[in-house]
Amino acid sequence: MPLPESWLQQPPAPSRAHLELASARQQVLTKPPGSLGKLEQVAITLASLSGSETPSVDPVRMVIFAGDHGVCAEGVSAFPQAVTAQMIANFASGGAAISVMAEELGASLEVVNLGTVGEVPALPGVIHQIIAPSTANMAKSPAMSSRQVESALYSGDDAARRAVNAGCRLFIGGDMGIGNTTSAAALACALLGQQPTTLVGPGTGLNSEGVARKARVVEKALHRHGPDRDPLTVLASLGGFEIAALTGAIMGCAARRIPVLVDGFIVSVAALVAVHQQPGVREWLLFAHRSAEPGHNSVLEALDASPLLDLRMRLGEGSGAAVAVPLLRAACALHNRMASFTDAGVSGKAEE
Amino acid sequence: MPLPESWLQQPPAPSRAHLELASARQQVLTKPPGSLGKLEQVAITLASLSGSETPSVDPVRMVIFAGDHGVCAEGVSAFPQAVTAQMIANFASGGAAISVMAEELGASLEVVNLGTVGEVPALPGVIHQIIAPSTANMAKSPAMSSRQVESALYSGDDAARRAVNAGCRLFIGGDMGIGNTTSAAALACALLGQQPTTLVGPGTGLNSEGVARKARVVEKALHRHGPDRDPLTVLASLGGFEIAALTGAIMGCAARRIPVLVDGFIVSVAALVAVHQQPGVREWLLFAHRSAEPGHNSVLEALDASPLLDLRMRLGEGSGAAVAVPLLRAACALHNRMASFTDAGVSGKAEE
Repeated sequence: MPLPESWLQQPPAPSRAHLELASARQQVLTKPPGSLGKLEQVAITLASLSGSETPSVDPVRMVIFAGDHGVCAEGVSAFPQAVTAQMIANFASGGAAISVMAEELGASLEVVNLGTVGEVPALPGVIHQIIAPSTANMAKSPAMSSRQVESALYSGDDAARRAVNAGCRLFIGGDMGIGNTTSAAALACALLGQQPTTLVGPGTGLNSEGVARKARVVEKALHRHGPDRDPLTVLASLGGFEIAALTGAIMGCAARRIPVLVDGFIVSVAALVAVHQQPGVREWLLFAHRSAEPGHNSVLEALDASPLLDLRMRLGEGSGAAVAVPLLRAACALHNRMASFTDAGVSGKAEE
Repeated sequence: MPLPESWLQQPPAPSRAHLELASARQQVLTKPPGSLGKLEQVAITLASLSGSETPSVDPVRMVIFAGDHGVCAEGVSAFPQAVTAQMIANFASGGAAISVMAEELGASLEVVNLGTVGEVPALPGVIHQIIAPSTANMAKSPAMSSRQVESALYSGDDAARRAVNAGCRLFIGGDMGIGNTTSAAALACALLGQQPTTLVGPGTGLNSEGVARKARVVEKALHRHGPDRDPLTVLASLGGFEIAALTGAIMGCAARRIPVLVDGFIVSVAALVAVHQQPGVREWLLFAHRSAEPGHNSVLEALDASPLLDLRMRLGEGSGAAVAVPLLRAACALHNRMASFTDAGVSGKAEE
């Protein structure tokens, strides 16, 4: 299986002309210039990405990628591995945080099952693209074969293609996989050349002893992997099915001109892999929130990202991105519908 | 005219029983405990304030209070005073930021005109409760007579009464008044015993020379006012019609058990006056955002407030609070509609 085109080629550039038009418009709306703060930049960015004078993020597509991690054998998570499969059922039946948010926002939600140790019955809204019951234990061998990592990248690219075909204008990827903060921390360490103690955190709720054990597991995996920073090799060696699929989805969206609203630690690491492979992907990313997972800070810094929210969330599933969607909608509504000083007959700023 | 009852009496206490029920519920929803971060506390607070196991903030009521400031004679604003009246028309015709947000959120919007130097025609959605064309210049005399400050407090209390009668479950107050960051800074200095240089900022966009001039004007007003910290005296001496009305509205809402989502610098100062008069008001307040206006930090600290958003907004009109409404809705939706571990058949956290 060859790699997706979006892995091999730079994405298109956003529209410079629409960026300039939108910047000029922000200066004439009935408000002190700059007074909408970050919402002004969001509107300008979305105008540039969508190539539209009246940007919109609707319809919003959310896709959760789920998969299990062999590294759970090392005792790295506060929750049992069975939860990955159980949560797929919870996504489908509407009881998970992201399901509630999708309904609240009127967004479409897909769940892509890439392989779990627990059994997943046939469920409405769940797409089964099973690669294996779980990755291998990265502390002992590469997490994925090259064929497996390619399959995962394709699953992500497929999701981007479906989103384009459905006319979606914003993509949110989410993750489900017990053990995936261990994998994400290892990936970030390998790509950024940082130490496990900097990037490993409590995940779903380890105590300090558990965090120390998890850091040792990451250390071991990094030692086994060696210093190679090639994104595909790093991803295969230390990644997870759902993380690789998120990388594929992000790159597939950028290639197809769909802005991606990046969630927390896991999705940011998937984005980091994507940007290491094709730096132009960065322009297609907006960052929703700063996770409470401590490693997120380093990853955000490496991506030169300043997220919209800092609510101490650390749930995954794309939930932090979902919570930020109304901020993007507000930015668009204000940009598109506010009156100008001239139209409203309002006096501008006095000369100084 | 006597003072509103809400000025003279402590507000009721929130429901301790509902706080405990909501806290317990957050522990059994299908997520790692604590992983929804600040949204968990928002849901618990709203359950306690609304006395409901399934809290909601809808319908949302927004009320903008507008009035002119005599202190504009001292050259304290980057915008001409005519803008206050012009913006009232812009609120009514739907072109202002808060008008767009009210429509976007499906919230009802009232504009209360307390008196402007510029002429305001009869407009739909604008309530005229004119006190005077503007306050007096606080650098030279008290901004308001005791009768004027009482009228303004009553206008605010009236707005709270209308919101209750309309069945609203969240109140957002907004401000419009060229010169009002000068008045708000002076009020905060007087109540907190801080220096003008700490609390005076650029407002709608003064340069550093303008900020220095504005600080000298506040200094002069504080000197004239003297060390009296009685909230009513401070409000009359240094306040504005719209700020006093916001204080009245906040106290009127607390008295009537309506949670208030506090906007930026101006509304926070109005809340500070309210809390100095009746400390129990604090429990009825949620804080939407940290304004880019530098004085806001001190006021938030004095109110022991940690706002949800920090988007570098500094527009006023209640716009920062409006942008935060979807976060409250998300907190309620997640609290009310997520499945529990038991209901969803999802395993809980492993014993450590």
